[in-house]
Amino acid sequence: VLPVEIIKAKREGLEIPQKQLKDFVNSFVAGEIPQYQMAAFLMATYYSGMTDLETSQLTQIMIDSGKTVSFSRPHVCIDKHSTGGVGDKTSLILAPIAAACGVQVPMMSGRGLGHTGGTVDKLESIPGFNIEMNLKDFQNQVENLGLAMICQTDDICPADKMMYALRDVTGTVESLPLICASIMSKKIAEGIGGLVLDVKWGNGAFMKTIEEAKALRDGLESIAKEHSLMVSSLITNMNQPLGAFVGNSLEVFEAQAILAGTDCLGISKSQFEDCRTLSLELASLMVAQGKKITLDKAQKQTHEALESGAALKKWEELCHQQGGKLNELACAKKRIPVVAPADGFITAINCESLGYVAIELGAGRKALGDPINPTTGLILHHKLGAKIRKGDTVIELVTEEESEASVKAFERASQSFLVGPSQPDLAPLISDR
Amino acid sequence: VLPVEIIKAKREGLEIPQKQLKDFVNSFVAGEIPQYQMAAFLMATYYSGMTDLETSQLTQIMIDSGKTVSFSRPHVCIDKHSTGGVGDKTSLILAPIAAACGVQVPMMSGRGLGHTGGTVDKLESIPGFNIEMNLKDFQNQVENLGLAMICQTDDICPADKMMYALRDVTGTVESLPLICASIMSKKIAEGIGGLVLDVKWGNGAFMKTIEEAKALRDGLESIAKEHSLMVSSLITNMNQPLGAFVGNSLEVFEAQAILAGTDCLGISKSQFEDCRTLSLELASLMVAQGKKITLDKAQKQTHEALESGAALKKWEELCHQQGGKLNELACAKKRIPVVAPADGFITAINCESLGYVAIELGAGRKALGDPINPTTGLILHHKLGAKIRKGDTVIELVTEEESEASVKAFERASQSFLVGPSQPDLAPLISDR
Repeated sequence: VLPVEIIKAKREGLEIPQKQLKDFVNSFVAGEIPQYQMAAFLMATYYSGMTDLETSQLTQIMIDSGKTVSFSRPHVCIDKHSTGGVGDKTSLILAPIAAACGVQVPMMSGRGLGHTGGTVDKLESIPGFNIEMNLKDFQNQVENLGLAMICQTDDICPADKMMYALRDVTGTVESLPLICASIMSKKIAEGIGGLVLDVKWGNGAFMKTIEEAKALRDGLESIAKEHSLMVSSLITNMNQPLGAFVGNSLEVFEAQAILAGTDCLGISKSQFEDCRTLSLELASLMVAQGKKITLDKAQKQTHEALESGAALKKWEELCHQQGGKLNELACAKKRIPVVAPADGFITAINCESLGYVAIELGAGRKALGDPINPTTGLILHHKLGAKIRKGDTVIELVTEEESEASVKAFERASQSFLVGPSQPDLAPLISDR
Repeated sequence: VLPVEIIKAKREGLEIPQKQLKDFVNSFVAGEIPQYQMAAFLMATYYSGMTDLETSQLTQIMIDSGKTVSFSRPHVCIDKHSTGGVGDKTSLILAPIAAACGVQVPMMSGRGLGHTGGTVDKLESIPGFNIEMNLKDFQNQVENLGLAMICQTDDICPADKMMYALRDVTGTVESLPLICASIMSKKIAEGIGGLVLDVKWGNGAFMKTIEEAKALRDGLESIAKEHSLMVSSLITNMNQPLGAFVGNSLEVFEAQAILAGTDCLGISKSQFEDCRTLSLELASLMVAQGKKITLDKAQKQTHEALESGAALKKWEELCHQQGGKLNELACAKKRIPVVAPADGFITAINCESLGYVAIELGAGRKALGDPINPTTGLILHHKLGAKIRKGDTVIELVTEEESEASVKAFERASQSFLVGPSQPDLAPLISDR
């Protein structure tokens, strides 16, 4: 079967037989099928979709294209994946909680994408923190310490890596089966026994509606089941940043405050209660999976791990193990307030826009490979529905100095929330389990 | 605007602004945009289509990517384009007829594509016939002799050439706006003032239904009008080969017999009356355009040119001018009859299949660049609706010798027609003007 016939079959909406799909992808990885044929195939897939079977087979092909991790007790190895948001630092909190409860957490994460942040960038804001590790060391650390947090290595799912790079420049990122196969192949290659999904919807998420988020969850869960992976999912609200801090070291500060049960940089812990709640919920699902216990029991254990300081201790051990000097964690010194224009309630927040405010301040990248400033970002003093008075600080920009960029960020931040006369109806943090 | 944004806009079905489209195509031709981005754009266009305005602009961009011919009297320069069929040798007949009537015919043609034949291959079956000429010589011959028949030069529409080559290997040939822009750019670059379109429908055409053929015609005419080109179209029937001969030198023999008014290689001229009729109709439309006269008057002139021998003389002058030795024209010697399995009427012919029979015998290519045998092909002894008796020869295969290929061709040919008890209803040769 010629590559062009496979492209045409996909173009016509046909299901590609496993062997053909495998040959096509493997030949692409081997450089025998040119990028333009894969690009045409990806665009045809964008329009025609894939059946669940095809998506699952594509996932396996991607896994088989590289190395995989094998843990001695895979059934206790549980990871979490979030579909991306603003201020989402739950990984930094739930991984030590779950590990403190006896679950093993082999976490490979990515960098910021679009307006959303990435766990690897956050970890790197800790001076000295090493996010690169070979698979053997990764495996040892997970089995000895209970967790490791690194970036994806080159030998995991190279087919996904090559296809993703091509999707990025050919307008074919936004394809549900391709998104699902890309996410799940990397997670399955980690050698986990279970996965907790945090699928976000809202104006700060890639999926704008609950329905879209559910479709993505269904796609991801379908692959997980095909691959005999335990899976639990939450559909969660991303219509405002999670917690109070957005930016790399700022989010590490918040995560540590939650682990320590304290306020953070002058902000009351009540301002980031949502982040604490969601981290505990996700950690509980991980513990329930990894220890084969009820969610109820798992919730008791995660609360205990958090409140006893065991999770904080695990976090400090992780940082120590990976070279991170927590005592050198810093945030930028200049704070620029954005104030409420009137008395009233915060009725809407443009969460995606706040993601771009953080990027403007240097906390994220405008183009692949741009350097970032790990110490900048923003602080949300009030969350959706809060009653405020004219002149109250709603958002603080955290930056090194006033600059053209901070002026742009200020203007954008000023237009990123609405103040209205009455309290808005708010969607719950967790929409669906 | 980044290339990926243009791809995404097309993916979303938006109209691409002229300047963006121009930059995108020109950058591709210059090698600054990689093939994979053009491939994704082409597949997005396959699904999303183009507006008439975009298609017309793409046509102009393709024209501007190369050289164009400028005739001193462009309004008398008329060409014909057929969307491709089996046994379609009308170009060889109508070009000398139109030229004998005083129209200038600057004809650049292609080679066989899929199951269909190509004028350039037919001309090359005449020993010595030179189908390559530079644009200056081409222009001189058209203005002095009244016609020239060559293959497309490298400097005409290089953007189309590059995009077509990519479409061929990325499953994006079958896109109406891309087909229209590809055809029309080459024709307009020839420097013509008018164009006659022969848009074919039926089981031997690319468009299987009259409706599809009309949609293609409308797309082509829309571009012609945008470019101030006179245009006339026929929708014609391709549910059986046109005329009685399929194959390269065989078709030249038939064309010459029509020009000379004789039978051909033992076949009565009544068997290829359809080809004579259509050639005259198309030539008359060309003459009406080029001489600004009524179709009635043009028909009188073309019949006169054919019957007086003036058209045959023009053909012989053309061949002489381009080095073709008509006295050396030959066809293969071995004939293999395919006979009727029963008494009755020929109720259906699989015309595409007969195209592949000819390819099997060496008259066409299975893959780009394959050599062809100019002397092989087939002869249709009876046309659709003919009353026949069991054992009558319906098709003769013309080949060098019996071979594995001729056995395959025989089997395929045996299954390429149906004999039934009653005379079928036949669609007319010309469905729509």
